[in-house]
Amino acid sequence: MNKNINLFLISAFASFTLFSCNNSKESSKGAISTNAAEKVYVAPGEYDEYYGFFSGGFSGQLSVYGLPSGRLFKVIPVFSQDPEKGYGYSEETKPMLMTSHGFIPWDDSHHPDISQTNGELDGRWIFINGNNTPRIARIDLEDFSTAEIIEVPNSAGNHSSSFITENTEYVVAGTRFSVPIPQRDIPIKDYKGNFKGALSFIKVDQQSGEMDLAFQIHMPGFNYDLSHPGRGKSHGWFFFTTYNTEEAHSLLEVNASQNDKDFIAAVNWKKAEEYIKAGKGKKMPANYAHNKFDPETHTATHTMKKEVLVLDATEFDDLVYLLPTPKSPHGCDVDPSGEYIIGNGKLSANLTVHSFTKMLDAIENKKFDGDAYGLPILKFDEVLAGVVEQPGLGPLHTEFDGRGNAYTTFFISSEVVKWKLGTWEIVDRKPTYYSVGHLMIPGGNSRKPDGKYMVAMNKITKDRYLPVGPDLNHSAQLYDITGDKMELILDFPTIGEPHYAAAIKADKIKDKARQIYKLSENKHPYSVKSPNETKVERKGNEVHIYMSMIRSHFTPDNIEGVKVGDKVFFHVTNLEQDFDVPHGIAMLGANTSELLVTPGKTETFVWEPKQVGVWPFYCTDFCSALHQEMQGYIRVSPKDSNIELSWSLDDE
Amino acid sequence: MNKNINLFLISAFASFTLFSCNNSKESSKGAISTNAAEKVYVAPGEYDEYYGFFSGGFSGQLSVYGLPSGRLFKVIPVFSQDPEKGYGYSEETKPMLMTSHGFIPWDDSHHPDISQTNGELDGRWIFINGNNTPRIARIDLEDFSTAEIIEVPNSAGNHSSSFITENTEYVVAGTRFSVPIPQRDIPIKDYKGNFKGALSFIKVDQQSGEMDLAFQIHMPGFNYDLSHPGRGKSHGWFFFTTYNTEEAHSLLEVNASQNDKDFIAAVNWKKAEEYIKAGKGKKMPANYAHNKFDPETHTATHTMKKEVLVLDATEFDDLVYLLPTPKSPHGCDVDPSGEYIIGNGKLSANLTVHSFTKMLDAIENKKFDGDAYGLPILKFDEVLAGVVEQPGLGPLHTEFDGRGNAYTTFFISSEVVKWKLGTWEIVDRKPTYYSVGHLMIPGGNSRKPDGKYMVAMNKITKDRYLPVGPDLNHSAQLYDITGDKMELILDFPTIGEPHYAAAIKADKIKDKARQIYKLSENKHPYSVKSPNETKVERKGNEVHIYMSMIRSHFTPDNIEGVKVGDKVFFHVTNLEQDFDVPHGIAMLGANTSELLVTPGKTETFVWEPKQVGVWPFYCTDFCSALHQEMQGYIRVSPKDSNIELSWSLDDE
Repeated sequence: MNKNINLFLISAFASFTLFSCNNSKESSKGAISTNAAEKVYVAPGEYDEYYGFFSGGFSGQLSVYGLPSGRLFKVIPVFSQDPEKGYGYSEETKPMLMTSHGFIPWDDSHHPDISQTNGELDGRWIFINGNNTPRIARIDLEDFSTAEIIEVPNSAGNHSSSFITENTEYVVAGTRFSVPIPQRDIPIKDYKGNFKGALSFIKVDQQSGEMDLAFQIHMPGFNYDLSHPGRGKSHGWFFFTTYNTEEAHSLLEVNASQNDKDFIAAVNWKKAEEYIKAGKGKKMPANYAHNKFDPETHTATHTMKKEVLVLDATEFDDLVYLLPTPKSPHGCDVDPSGEYIIGNGKLSANLTVHSFTKMLDAIENKKFDGDAYGLPILKFDEVLAGVVEQPGLGPLHTEFDGRGNAYTTFFISSEVVKWKLGTWEIVDRKPTYYSVGHLMIPGGNSRKPDGKYMVAMNKITKDRYLPVGPDLNHSAQLYDITGDKMELILDFPTIGEPHYAAAIKADKIKDKARQIYKLSENKHPYSVKSPNETKVERKGNEVHIYMSMIRSHFTPDNIEGVKVGDKVFFHVTNLEQDFDVPHGIAMLGANTSELLVTPGKTETFVWEPKQVGVWPFYCTDFCSALHQEMQGYIRVSPKDSNIELSWSLDDE
Repeated sequence: MNKNINLFLISAFASFTLFSCNNSKESSKGAISTNAAEKVYVAPGEYDEYYGFFSGGFSGQLSVYGLPSGRLFKVIPVFSQDPEKGYGYSEETKPMLMTSHGFIPWDDSHHPDISQTNGELDGRWIFINGNNTPRIARIDLEDFSTAEIIEVPNSAGNHSSSFITENTEYVVAGTRFSVPIPQRDIPIKDYKGNFKGALSFIKVDQQSGEMDLAFQIHMPGFNYDLSHPGRGKSHGWFFFTTYNTEEAHSLLEVNASQNDKDFIAAVNWKKAEEYIKAGKGKKMPANYAHNKFDPETHTATHTMKKEVLVLDATEFDDLVYLLPTPKSPHGCDVDPSGEYIIGNGKLSANLTVHSFTKMLDAIENKKFDGDAYGLPILKFDEVLAGVVEQPGLGPLHTEFDGRGNAYTTFFISSEVVKWKLGTWEIVDRKPTYYSVGHLMIPGGNSRKPDGKYMVAMNKITKDRYLPVGPDLNHSAQLYDITGDKMELILDFPTIGEPHYAAAIKADKIKDKARQIYKLSENKHPYSVKSPNETKVERKGNEVHIYMSMIRSHFTPDNIEGVKVGDKVFFHVTNLEQDFDVPHGIAMLGANTSELLVTPGKTETFVWEPKQVGVWPFYCTDFCSALHQEMQGYIRVSPKDSNIELSWSLDDE
C-alpha cells in the first residue's frame, strides 16, 4: 500500500512534467508583464541591488550572482578543485581539501548562510556545508575566498547544515545519514540501535570567525534532513526535520515512507551549553580535519583533531523534544518572529505549522505522547499552530517576506504558494519551470527578511533555454514579490545545483571588499618583494625558484641547470599593487593547473620534468599590451648532467 | 630607446585605466539608450537568438552563452578537470586528459572556431586549442561535449590556433613559442638557428569530424601569434602573424620589440598538399596523444602517435612568403571576401592592410625584399592595400559585419573602432570598459558574418560589477551594430578569460541537439539494462559493482563483503530515458568527484576504502520527490575478513 503512494508520486511527477513541457512556452510568456525587462535590467556601469550567494550543489562551490540581473560575478572555490583559479592544485591551497579520508577533490555544497548580529545579516562571513565528506566552510566576505574548513566527525551526508544562530554563536551541522558511532564493521541489517545521528554545534569566534567544534548531540538513527535556528523568542533552540524514523536501511523510497508522522527535533542548545559547562559532555575519540587559510602567509594549514565532546540526547530529559510532523518532512523553517516552525511533509497533503509558545507550554505541562526513541515526544495537537490545507503536491521549503506572508515551494505540482501566517489562508500561487526545490528571499534566515524579490531554484530545466544537449544547467527564476501577487520577471541558469541561496543588500558589504593584498604584509616564506630578491636554489633534487611577476616580465625568465627527476617549485609573487592586475603562470607539461596570482600574493606549483629539452612558461592572464612577451624558458638536462643552476637577471 | 616605447606603453596603460575608472560610471551610463533593456531581455519561456561559444582561457573550458541575454547556459569541460560533471575524474573521461607528458588536469583554451561548409558556419563541430600543453579539441554540437583531443608535437604555447579552413578541410595550429626541434638539451642562449616554429595542419574527416595530423611546416624561430584562413579568392592560403623576429630569448618585452616590422607569414597550404602528395614530406619521430570519446561505449580511449610528416619551409621557394607588417602584429584577420589581410601591429600607430591580389602579383613578379630567414620576403609597398591612420593605441583584433565595415579593438586606448574596408576611413569609435582583447561578430571567421551584434571581451573588469574581492571575473560587452553607430547595450561577466568566441544563429543548430542517450545502444562493458542485471563481482582486490539508478533507487543499495585495501569500481548506469533526468552518485571518502550520469549512460569511479565501517552513498542530483531516499550503504570489513560479497535485491 505504501509502495502505492510512491508510485503515485512518481507518476504524478512524470505526468506533470510532460504536461508542463507542452504548455510552458505559452503560459509563462503570457504571464510576463511589459515592464519586466526594465525591472531586471542593470545598465552597463550600474550595480545590482543584491548579492546572491548560491550553493553549487554537486559543483562543491559557492556562486555569487547579482540580483535582479541574474549575472554570475564569481564562482568561489570551496570544497572542490578549481583549475581556473588553481584552487586545490597550488601547494598553498591543497591543504584546504585534506580530510580524515585524505585529499578529497570534490564535495556537494548545499546551504549557505550569512553571519548575523542580533538576528540581522551582518555580512562578515558566509558558511556552507559539504554534504558528502561532512564539512563546514567559512568564506570571508572581505576577499570572497574560503578562509576555513572543518570536518564534522560521526556524520555522513552533512545535509541539515550549515545554519547559524542569530548572533553567529554557532554554525550547526546535522548528519543526514545515521552511521555506526563509532564506525565499526557491523552488518547493515543491524541498523536499529547501532546507527546513530549526530548534530554538531560549531562555535564561531566573534572576532576572527574561526570555527571550533564545541559539542555534538547524539540522536536516534533517523535521517536528519534540514534545520533552522530559533530566533527572537525561540533563540536558544534549533529545529531539525527527520525522516526514516522507521530506521530502514534499504529501499528507503518505500521503507522510509511507512510512518504517518516523522518528527521535528527541537534542540535546546542553551541547555546543552549548560550541560557541557557542568562537565556532562563525554570525550570521545574522533579524527577530523581543521584547515585554515593564513592571510599573512597566503597558505593553508591542515591539522587533525582527535576528540569531540558528546551529549547523548537520550540521557537527558530536557535537551531534545520530538514534535510529530506529517510525513517525511523536508524543509524546517522558522518565521521571522521565531513563533512558527514549519515542517513541510513532502508526502503530506497539508502543511504543518508548530507553535513555539505552545511547545514551551506542552513541555512545561508534560503533554507527552510516549518516548519510543528514548526522547520525549510532544502531543501533536498540543504544539500545532495551524495547518495550511491542501496547498499543493510535494511541499519542500518555506521563506518569509517580513510582511506576514510565507512562501512555500511544491516540487511535484511545480509552484510557489504564498500564504498568510496566522490565518493559514492561501493568497497566491505561481507556477515554476520546473519542479522547484529551495526558494530564497534575501535575509530569509533572519529576523528581518527583505521582501522585494524571491528566487525559485528549480530542479528541472528541460526547454527553458536554447538546447545544449543532454546535460543542462539548472535554472532559477526571479519573482517580484512587492505586490499582492508574485510576478515572474526573469529566468537565469545557474552553476551546479543551487540547493539554497542567501542574499544580502549590496550596500551592506560592497564598500569593504578588498582590492589587493599588501605586498609589504606578505609573509609567505618564498615571497620576494622586488625582482632583485629573486633566485633559484637547489636542495637535493628539489629546485626552488623565487620568481616575481610584474607587467610584463617574469624574473628570472631563463633558467638552466634543472635536471630530469628534479622537483621544481615555482614560488611566484605578483608584485603589482593595483586593483585587478593578476598575472598567471603555466609550465608546459606540469601535472597541475596554472597559478592565477592576485596582486601581493605568492603561490606555488610543482613541475617534475620528465624529458630533456628547453620548455617555455608564460603568463596566462592578458595583463598588458606586452602580455604576449611575458614568457620564459627552462632548460632541462639529463639526470646525470653536471650543469650548475643559473638564471637570468633583468639587466642582461 | 626601445625600452622607452615599452615604458611609454606601460605608463599610457596605467594612466588610461586610472582615468577610465574615475569616469566610467558617468560616461557609460550616459551612452545607454532607453530601449537597451528591451533589446537584451529574453523573457521567461523565450529563446535567445544566438549561441555564443566563449573560450575559457585559463579555465581550459568552453562556455555556451545566449545572446543577446548574456546568460551562461553551460560550461563544456574540454582541457581541464571539472568536478561538477566528473570530467577528468571518472574512469571513462580520464583518458581524454592524457598527453605525452602524462595526465594533465588543466589547459589554457583560446580560440574556438565553428566548422564550415562553403565558407559558411554549418554548426556540426566546434574546435578549440589548448595553449599550454599544445592540443586541439573537437566538440560535438549534437551533445555539446568534447569528442576528441589531439596533441600537437614540436609546439609550445599553441596560440595561433585553432582556425579552420572554409570547408573544414583542416583545423590549423601554430606554435607560439619556438623550441628546439627535436627537443634536446641545449643552452637557451643558442636560440638562433636551433629554435624553430611549427605550423600544423590537422585534417578533419568530412563525415565523422575525426582529426588526423596531416603535416607540419617548420618555420624560423619566431613567435607565431595568431592566424586566420584565406577564404573565397584566398582559399588555399593561411596567414599567421609573427613577433619576436629578433629571435630573442629573454626580456622579450624589450628585446622582441626592436624591429620596425615583423611579418605575416602567408602559407600556401594547397601547395603544401601537393608536396606531401609528391612525397616531399620528411617523416620525423614525434610523440603525441590522440584521444577519442567513443559514443557507443561512452568511454574515452587514449593512444600515442609516433611520427609526423614535416615540410621545412626554407627548403621550398613557393610554400611560405613573408609580408612585412609593423610592429609586433597580434591579430591576423581576413575579411569576408578574402581580399584583405589585416595585421594589427600592437606597437604600431597605424593599422596595416595587405591585399591578397597584390600579394599574388608580387609573388608572380618576384617583388622580393631579401630572404633573411631563408624565406622570401615580399616588398611592403607591393602588397599594401591601405593603412588606417592613427586609429587608436594598441590594436589587437579585427572582425567584420558583412556590410563592408571592419571593427578593430584597441587594448591601450580601450575602444572599438569601426572603419570602412577599401576607403580605410574611421566611421565610429566606442569605449570599452576596460581594455578589450578580442571581439566577436557571429560568423566572424566566415564568408558571411551576421552583423547584428558585436561582443567585446575585456581584459580588465575593476568596477563594472558589485565588488567581489581581489579576484574578479572577466567581462564582456554587447553592442548593437545594426545602425551607423555602435550602441553598447549590455555588460555581462564571463567564465575564465574568454580570449575569443564564435557565435551562430540558434536556428542553425538548436533542433538537432540530443536529449538522451539510448539505453539500448549503450555498449559500455559494465552497463546494465535493468535492475535485474545488477551484480557485484570480485577479481582479486578489485570489486566491480554493476549498479543501476532510476527514480529513486540504486540497485543494489546495500553491499557487504568489501574490505580495506580493495579497489571498488562503481559502474553506474542511469536507466532513465526521459530528457533532463540525470542522477548523481557520490561515496563518502572517495578521492574523486561525484558522477553525474545522463540518461542512458554508464560511468565509473573508484573508491579505495581505508577504514572499516558502514559508509553511505547517495544521489547528488535532486531527481524526484523521493530523491532524499535515494541512498545506500557499503559495509567495509578488515583486510583479513572472510565475509563474502553480498548485495541487496530490490524485492528484499
